[in-house]
Amino acid sequence: MARIAVVAGDGIGPEVVAQARKVLETVLPGIEATEYDLGAARYHRTGEVLPDSVLDELGQHDAILLGAVGDPSVPSGVLERGLLLKLRFAFDQYVNLRPSRLWPGTTSPLANAKPGEIDLVVVREGTESLYAGAGGNLHKGTPAEVATEESLNTRHGVERVVRDAFARAAARPRRKLTLVHKNNVLTHAGDLWARTFNEVAAEYPDIATEYQHVDAAAMFLVTQPQRYDVIVTDNLFGDILTDVAAAITGGIGLAASGNINPDRRYPSMFEPVHGSAPDIAGKGLADPAAAVLSVGLLLEHLGHPEAARRVTDAVAAELAGRTPGAPLRTDEVGDRLAAAVSA
Amino acid sequence: MARIAVVAGDGIGPEVVAQARKVLETVLPGIEATEYDLGAARYHRTGEVLPDSVLDELGQHDAILLGAVGDPSVPSGVLERGLLLKLRFAFDQYVNLRPSRLWPGTTSPLANAKPGEIDLVVVREGTESLYAGAGGNLHKGTPAEVATEESLNTRHGVERVVRDAFARAAARPRRKLTLVHKNNVLTHAGDLWARTFNEVAAEYPDIATEYQHVDAAAMFLVTQPQRYDVIVTDNLFGDILTDVAAAITGGIGLAASGNINPDRRYPSMFEPVHGSAPDIAGKGLADPAAAVLSVGLLLEHLGHPEAARRVTDAVAAELAGRTPGAPLRTDEVGDRLAAAVSA
Ligand SMILES: CC(C)[C@H](C(=O)O)[C@@H](O)C(=O)O
Ligand SMILES: CC(C)[C@H](C(=O)O)[C@@H](O)C(=O)O
Repeated sequence: MARIAVVAGDGIGPEVVAQARKVLETVLPGIEATEYDLGAARYHRTGEVLPDSVLDELGQHDAILLGAVGDPSVPSGVLERGLLLKLRFAFDQYVNLRPSRLWPGTTSPLANAKPGEIDLVVVREGTESLYAGAGGNLHKGTPAEVATEESLNTRHGVERVVRDAFARAAARPRRKLTLVHKNNVLTHAGDLWARTFNEVAAEYPDIATEYQHVDAAAMFLVTQPQRYDVIVTDNLFGDILTDVAAAITGGIGLAASGNINPDRRYPSMFEPVHGSAPDIAGKGLADPAAAVLSVGLLLEHLGHPEAARRVTDAVAAELAGRTPGAPLRTDEVGDRLAAAVSA
Repeated sequence: MARIAVVAGDGIGPEVVAQARKVLETVLPGIEATEYDLGAARYHRTGEVLPDSVLDELGQHDAILLGAVGDPSVPSGVLERGLLLKLRFAFDQYVNLRPSRLWPGTTSPLANAKPGEIDLVVVREGTESLYAGAGGNLHKGTPAEVATEESLNTRHGVERVVRDAFARAAARPRRKLTLVHKNNVLTHAGDLWARTFNEVAAEYPDIATEYQHVDAAAMFLVTQPQRYDVIVTDNLFGDILTDVAAAITGGIGLAASGNINPDRRYPSMFEPVHGSAPDIAGKGLADPAAAVLSVGLLLEHLGHPEAARRVTDAVAAELAGRTPGAPLRTDEVGDRLAAAVSA
């Protein structure tokens, strides 16, 4: 039976993860879940972000379910670099998978988008580019200061995520893949991406491909989101584009994600795209939909497509039954979803 | 009398620039305009992108009016790096000014945005960060290839654009300035930006300030664009955010921009945000509104606020009188705008 590490985290993290666990344990009884205390609270209590021993333990699981980490009281970057990105990098989670669908019952801020019309998935590279953490400050605090950030991109890293994206596009009905970069300015990295993409494309003659600059893609996500099926892109561009994709499909409150190590050498990690939302934490008002949809991705990854479908269908039915703007109770939503997947 | 260099460029560039010149010469009779032949056509004819002698000549003007450069027949990056970015860097145009307004008569793809509600300006840094062109490819074309792009940021470069943004925010009624970066991941450059921003903010106690990560800002531009007044951000983030800002305010067909050297040591350059649009080039169908609005920014920069206002008002009236979706003729729009500014 699969062993899942649960990192509930901060703010609304524990609230939504409790519901996600409930749904997971209902749909796959016997699954073994272990909680790990990481995040802002532990950092304040012990000064620790991610001890090596905990990293080792997490590595012995089949998957990680993460709620949200972060709190305004922790300096920016500490938990992001020390915990979230550390996990993505240590476990070589090179496919950051972010589907966006405009579900029936949800409203898009876009006037012309109808439920069912937007159904895209962004395959965001998860281990390279500007996220490598290669930078520094020289003459810090003086008028002569220079700060650098280096984007590091390897053929190895680009090819594997591009291959993953082609395989995903091949498994979807529309069979369309868009490469997004900025190769008219980032000529070196952009060239590596474009060359690699074109070489792999030759192996997939029946997949329609296109290239777009990131600025154009951000625009088209707003003006013509229907045109996208699968998008493959770099870590930073993917970060920005997936928030736009979430915005047009009902908000990050509904956006699920998987940080996937397709080789299965390391655990993959599943997390809602939303943050810890300290403003509504502890009130039982957070929508667990994104966390539960992330469980769907986790089940898919662990080889339980039927259970994954039940989870996703349950969320779809829940959303379809909602009155836009009506308040919700986190645990009630979780109960309904758990009931739906057990039915 | 001001001397303007006109780079009409490629595709629809010459068509929209012809109208922009017409309006400029009507509102400021006696202005001296000289055409420079640069862009894809010249590159194909002579192999030249921007000869030093032409750069010198351009430098002797008070401002540059640019249409659009680029064509699919030119390898990506050649004209962008060799011409457009070369001009921005050579003339130290460190303020890339991009206002976005939802004008009466235009439609936003956002269901809840009414004309008049969106009125923001992005102050995008124009001479640093990933646009520095510091990158390379090692072991190119082999499985061991690594491609780098370096983001270079200086206190000098950050402070001057931050100061410019504060001054612009101070001159607007809402007096609000949002810094956008990604300081939880790009901790070195993000820290330089945030420190500099906070230091300058201390000199402007009556300006409301906030910080947002770029992914959140991209999302909020879609879900709550009304919240923004002035945004200051880095070159790459500004590139992406201004396309989103254009998308929510009627498209890049209406977006004007100025590449400004506030010191006036070098000419500033004004250009519509749209590209050369080869698909509709030569048909007289391109909307010159963005090019004419860019003339408004040019006039403002050269110290003709009254003429600038007449140009902007003329475009506003033109847009207010349009039937959404109705076809337009480039020269007819130009004629109407010229008539309006002369009245
Ligand atoms: C919190 C931050 C480090 C993270 C990222 O930039 O990847 C987040 O924005 C996300 O998209 O998961
Ligand atoms: C053409 C390209 C180099 C340019 C940029 O990235 O700055 C364009 O996208 C813009 O926004 O003016």
